[in-house]
Amino acid sequence: MTPTDSSLELQKFLHEKIPLSRAMGVQVVAVNDTELTLCAPLEPNHNHLGTAFGGSLSALATLAGYTFLWIALGDRDAHIVIRDSTISYQKPVRGELRATCLAPDPKKLAKFLKIFHQKGKSRIKLTVLIEENGETAVTLTGTYVALR
Amino acid sequence: MTPTDSSLELQKFLHEKIPLSRAMGVQVVAVNDTELTLCAPLEPNHNHLGTAFGGSLSALATLAGYTFLWIALGDRDAHIVIRDSTISYQKPVRGELRATCLAPDPKKLAKFLKIFHQKGKSRIKLTVLIEENGETAVTLTGTYVALR
Repeated sequence: MTPTDSSLELQKFLHEKIPLSRAMGVQVVAVNDTELTLCAPLEPNHNHLGTAFGGSLSALATLAGYTFLWIALGDRDAHIVIRDSTISYQKPVRGELRATCLAPDPKKLAKFLKIFHQKGKSRIKLTVLIEENGETAVTLTGTYVALR
Repeated sequence: MTPTDSSLELQKFLHEKIPLSRAMGVQVVAVNDTELTLCAPLEPNHNHLGTAFGGSLSALATLAGYTFLWIALGDRDAHIVIRDSTISYQKPVRGELRATCLAPDPKKLAKFLKIFHQKGKSRIKLTVLIEENGETAVTLTGTYVALR
């Protein structure tokens, strides 16, 4: 997918606000209603085995959740934090790291947004997949909180 | 605590093998029988709120577990991977990031080492705490696997 102006602008926002995303070489490669995908090259993110470092995988997956919520809220000033996460590392990642935050059930997303706008604080559970060659390598499930 | 020669050598090993640890500014600050502590400055690890980025916290905590096992195994060629982790972010970290991997119960550690030496593959659950001003900010519980 060709990066659009909005994905390049979003990438610039991430690099400015979260310097580790720049050090990791994070790119925003897909933004649409059903998912958000971030990529990062293996080179700055490899481990002692030449595969992707678990810490880079967890950082990229965590960031995909944040980024999805910035887009969903349409509010870059919203304070988004992660409350907890569970990560399962099923397979090593041998090439580019590619993390996709799946859109939650539309009813759950609508409820999250409604509560955020009413109370200024809302939480939602998100799932992020890191896939390679069509197979899931890493799954993150995280609870994110948005605050105004 | 003053870094010892061995902690500086270990830090060099981490920076060479896992480039993200260099980008994060990871330092090995305490290595002893009961715990292993890694630090990283806030500057390259902050988020959009000026506190520590969740991805940096998870990466540093994950790395503390790896490093503890390299020391426990006394074998830098051992292939250590993380199988799963659960991370709880209880408080924001406003200054230096400081992750301590606690030594597991001595009987569990001995069993892990015995199985590794017998079968060339062994797993263990580790707990890593990120603390600031005497309070726990982040807790990671992870299952690590060592392979020969």
